[in-house]
Amino acid sequence: MDKLRKHLEEIIALSDEEFEYIKTFFVPKRVKKHQYLIQEGDQANLEYLILSGIFRMFYLDSEGKEYIVQFAGENWWMADYQAYFNAKKATLHITCMEDAEVLCLNLAGREKLAAGLHKMEHFFRVKLTKGYTAQHRRIISLLSSTPQQRYEEFGLLYPHLMQKIPKKYIAEYLGVSRETLSRLYTNSKGR
Amino acid sequence: MDKLRKHLEEIIALSDEEFEYIKTFFVPKRVKKHQYLIQEGDQANLEYLILSGIFRMFYLDSEGKEYIVQFAGENWWMADYQAYFNAKKATLHITCMEDAEVLCLNLAGREKLAAGLHKMEHFFRVKLTKGYTAQHRRIISLLSSTPQQRYEEFGLLYPHLMQKIPKKYIAEYLGVSRETLSRLYTNSKGR
Repeated sequence: MDKLRKHLEEIIALSDEEFEYIKTFFVPKRVKKHQYLIQEGDQANLEYLILSGIFRMFYLDSEGKEYIVQFAGENWWMADYQAYFNAKKATLHITCMEDAEVLCLNLAGREKLAAGLHKMEHFFRVKLTKGYTAQHRRIISLLSSTPQQRYEEFGLLYPHLMQKIPKKYIAEYLGVSRETLSRLYTNSKGR
Repeated sequence: MDKLRKHLEEIIALSDEEFEYIKTFFVPKRVKKHQYLIQEGDQANLEYLILSGIFRMFYLDSEGKEYIVQFAGENWWMADYQAYFNAKKATLHITCMEDAEVLCLNLAGREKLAAGLHKMEHFFRVKLTKGYTAQHRRIISLLSSTPQQRYEEFGLLYPHLMQKIPKKYIAEYLGVSRETLSRLYTNSKGR
């Protein structure tokens, strides 16, 4: 739970008592590579704070084609948020790409924490603000960028993920073929 | 300011004193059709709550091609959030499509309201949660949906906007040609 405290204290200062209370809401879980955290149709009533490991969140269409919504690594929060916030069943899949440890928080716990501690309401608002602007950027990128621009942007924003994630998934996330990705990769190496 | 109070009270209950304090942070502004609220390069230090009217937020690429990020109507909050939250210059344009009234809130005011009143922190968190899940849906839609699906989803989510916005802009938002949109429109009428 040290990692949780450190993570929260990047945004809010906490007394020992406050942290003792906050940590009772989080349940640790280990996840192995290839294991699913959420599958379509599950009750997706948990949000996850990633302490270590890497995950891939994706949508599967009716023909089994996979569309990667996002990757997530250490210190990221992750959930099928449409399902989580609206108490609906999951429409996305979340799978583990590298052995991981996460902390699970259910929606009732999240709301209780936010209502009981103004600091935690602030923490969640700040995190949502960052998530919101990152999604905003992704929408603009999906609408307007060339594969080359998307590739370079991904490398700048997530250098750590760029090294660790197999190229086929990066290609899928960027919406390009593996051949195109290889070409982009070679181009950027040559500079 | 009655509309502001009603809007806030959809989520939080306010005393008269609280509302008197809150409303001091908001500055009313009238905007005429075709007028720009934000242009690329502006100091985008205001967020807008739309009391009436319709806006279009878009990105212009280096060749002058327009990509619509979102439309916004009554009771929506709107800003170039990447610029607003990070105190950077705007990369987007926001233009008025129907004479409008908005309330302007600057970032310092927003943060002061949230810090001073737990209720307002809660209000902003709830609004961000809704905005976040709407963006999530849009990303999945951009990645995986056919034009037909996107058109139907837009009609279901925003029937009011569907009627009021010229078709060429809806086509642009959905990423389809006007001819394709006409076909979709005819198809859905025929059902």
